Amino acid sequence: MKPRDWDQPMAELTPTETLVPDLFASRWITLPDGVTALPPTSLAPGFRVAGTAAGIKQSGKPDLGIIINDGPHATSAARFTKTSAPAAPVLVCRERTDIQSLRAIIVNSGNANAATGGRGFDNAVFMQGAGAMIAGAPEGQVAVASTGVIGQQLNTRAIARGCTQLGGQMSTETTLGFADSIHTTDAFAKLAAVEVQLSGGVVTVSGQAKGAGMICPNHATLLCFLQTDAKLDARTCDVLLKAGINESFDRVTVDAQMSTNDSVFLMASGTSGVGPAGAADDRALAGAIDSVLRALAIALVRDGEGARRIAKVSVTGGDHAVAEKVARAVADSPLVKTALNGGDANWGRIIQSVGMALATGENVPIDITIEGIQVCKNSCATRFDEDELTQLVQRDEVEYEIGLPGEGAHAEVIFSDLSHEYVTINAEYRT
Amino acid sequence: MKPRDWDQPMAELTPTETLVPDLFASRWITLPDGVTALPPTSLAPGFRVAGTAAGIKQSGKPDLGIIINDGPHATSAARFTKTSAPAAPVLVCRERTDIQSLRAIIVNSGNANAATGGRGFDNAVFMQGAGAMIAGAPEGQVAVASTGVIGQQLNTRAIARGCTQLGGQMSTETTLGFADSIHTTDAFAKLAAVEVQLSGGVVTVSGQAKGAGMICPNHATLLCFLQTDAKLDARTCDVLLKAGINESFDRVTVDAQMSTNDSVFLMASGTSGVGPAGAADDRALAGAIDSVLRALAIALVRDGEGARRIAKVSVTGGDHAVAEKVARAVADSPLVKTALNGGDANWGRIIQSVGMALATGENVPIDITIEGIQVCKNSCATRFDEDELTQLVQRDEVEYEIGLPGEGAHAEVIFSDLSHEYVTINAEYRT
Repeated sequence: MKPRDWDQPMAELTPTETLVPDLFASRWITLPDGVTALPPTSLAPGFRVAGTAAGIKQSGKPDLGIIINDGPHATSAARFTKTSAPAAPVLVCRERTDIQSLRAIIVNSGNANAATGGRGFDNAVFMQGAGAMIAGAPEGQVAVASTGVIGQQLNTRAIARGCTQLGGQMSTETTLGFADSIHTTDAFAKLAAVEVQLSGGVVTVSGQAKGAGMICPNHATLLCFLQTDAKLDARTCDVLLKAGINESFDRVTVDAQMSTNDSVFLMASGTSGVGPAGAADDRALAGAIDSVLRALAIALVRDGEGARRIAKVSVTGGDHAVAEKVARAVADSPLVKTALNGGDANWGRIIQSVGMALATGENVPIDITIEGIQVCKNSCATRFDEDELTQLVQRDEVEYEIGLPGEGAHAEVIFSDLSHEYVTINAEYRT
Repeated sequence: MKPRDWDQPMAELTPTETLVPDLFASRWITLPDGVTALPPTSLAPGFRVAGTAAGIKQSGKPDLGIIINDGPHATSAARFTKTSAPAAPVLVCRERTDIQSLRAIIVNSGNANAATGGRGFDNAVFMQGAGAMIAGAPEGQVAVASTGVIGQQLNTRAIARGCTQLGGQMSTETTLGFADSIHTTDAFAKLAAVEVQLSGGVVTVSGQAKGAGMICPNHATLLCFLQTDAKLDARTCDVLLKAGINESFDRVTVDAQMSTNDSVFLMASGTSGVGPAGAADDRALAGAIDSVLRALAIALVRDGEGARRIAKVSVTGGDHAVAEKVARAVADSPLVKTALNGGDANWGRIIQSVGMALATGENVPIDITIEGIQVCKNSCATRFDEDELTQLVQRDEVEYEIGLPGEGAHAEVIFSDLSHEYVTINAEYRT
């Protein structure tokens, strides 16, 4: 697989080049000491996956997948959307599943099984049962995840048919069949894997995620599956997952939307026989999990529906709540997003969104730096080389730095642009 | 002027038909008893306006305008943006202007005079002085307003040259020259006028506004000028303006953005010699002002950059804060906006945004009705005629009703769609 050149505009890449990009190539990811990238299709030992075309999607593309933990242990943790309109699979995970000891996760795309009432709940239970049969595990140890159109009943005959196909397609690495089976409007597979040296030996962390719309900074705002062959208790799984999400999915936004179905899972097989022994191992393992989650989160933004460019906004100054609010305001501004798309260093829209977020009514001195070039100091335009800056903002990744009065606080958000393709995809999604 | 047919898609209208549309044709505006629409270019007696091409805009289009009150009285009120990055003209209005007794307002487009520091402030003071000379009024009674690109110094030589032209172009009705002089990306003039019967006689209320981006529900989020020949004290002006904004500009959104320059002015000339005498007159005059403001506010949404369709979301149930939050979440959702643009009755995105706004994590029964057809009851899809609904949502104005548990609270927001044209306009605005 050819490494991804992030300075090359995404639109110029051919499908084969973008299919499984190297997610660690971003300048915004640094692997910690002791953590080594593996090929993205690597799967942690002890796990098998499969994906197939069950007939849920009208396109005939893969739409049903399963992840099975065959290891000596089965510990796990999960986080779900906070929406007040949770989809049936989320309700089944919460109400009928022992989320701390998952043996399998069955997942479909093409239909979210959301806003489907009692019948939708029953259909999610049916999926759970089908997953249990394939995995040879109790129903209560099988989680369910769905993504796709809202408000339509699931085709359970297609699910049943697909399940008979899954058994023959199991693989100990992440197949494109599985990756595709969790996709909706995704343009490329989001897969990442690392190994990390613990005192007792090497363990692997692998992950797969799907975007691409409805990605907003709130825990569990997408579908994401993580596996490790480390030996972990369920509480450690939970702590590691929560901390990792804080530094990854909670720091990205595509369109500030929270979905009805967002779910993130971490499963541990114990196949390596190695668990963290002491604080240094805890840190090393957390670093590995954080790296995979962060790579997947940035990839989600990069594949934000129709995204051409992505940006990182860093706010320094103010107190934490203010810095966070300002970073979100810039990241979610449709004016900043369209300027990013146009490769336009229009910092006027940045100061506009910062001013709106602060909303004191009084003048606040604001500093703005784009790609290391200061464009605004004390809320006043500075002199700079416009041509140089324009070249810098036409690359694939752009950095904005905002300075506010005060010290200490810092907030960072990575976000995508707003493009014609976003409008096309979302104005025509159902047709 | 041909009355606007709101069921006809805006894109099919020719420029001459849309140039000065009848803003009262919307089904969401009902003129109160005693209030009668006047031709939109009508100006309240006692006022003159002029607009000219001063050379601020590179396009050579009108970019400098003035409104002068020649009446026996000069009382007024204004509201400004709450941003923490206020533009120089806003600072000059606040710091150097007696906003309660304005004789004139000088306004330019093409340059916002924002993020321009001390020199920008001095340039706004220069504009104020130029306006005072034309109006023959003290500087302190002349307000300044600007709109356009942020972070560039104003061309004061162009302003000076333009001011020499304005004197020869004064008119007692709103000219297209004036309307154009306040425009940036506006597609049509936003002008409205009514007369209202008070116990002492008839008075007129006229108004002009410019959009079209950065329109968000917060007081003073655009440029808007209102005139009346009623005899009013400054306190009454202020009360009427505040109440009118609550029911108009605070109820609309294009892209949820607050500008550095947003300003709304109300000036009273007293030329009619008639003032409100008692509660019935107060109500009648308030009804007239509200009608003009609401017509202008809805027109701003309709002219939201690139808008093809507009929608009204009404939320009933919950408490007031919840209803308001849910209405805003629907109105600001890029997914709902793109579906509106596509003429797609994709209510799944409505329930998604409602669920996100409530964010209880628990299932909340949500009802959704589109154009009178219930599509979702207790958070579950209902059966309905999809073809009929699709026809209804492909008209120019679409209504969504959301029902939440509980009674009493109600919130309403009118908003525009998200179109290819929005992206084009904003990705290429500076070039």
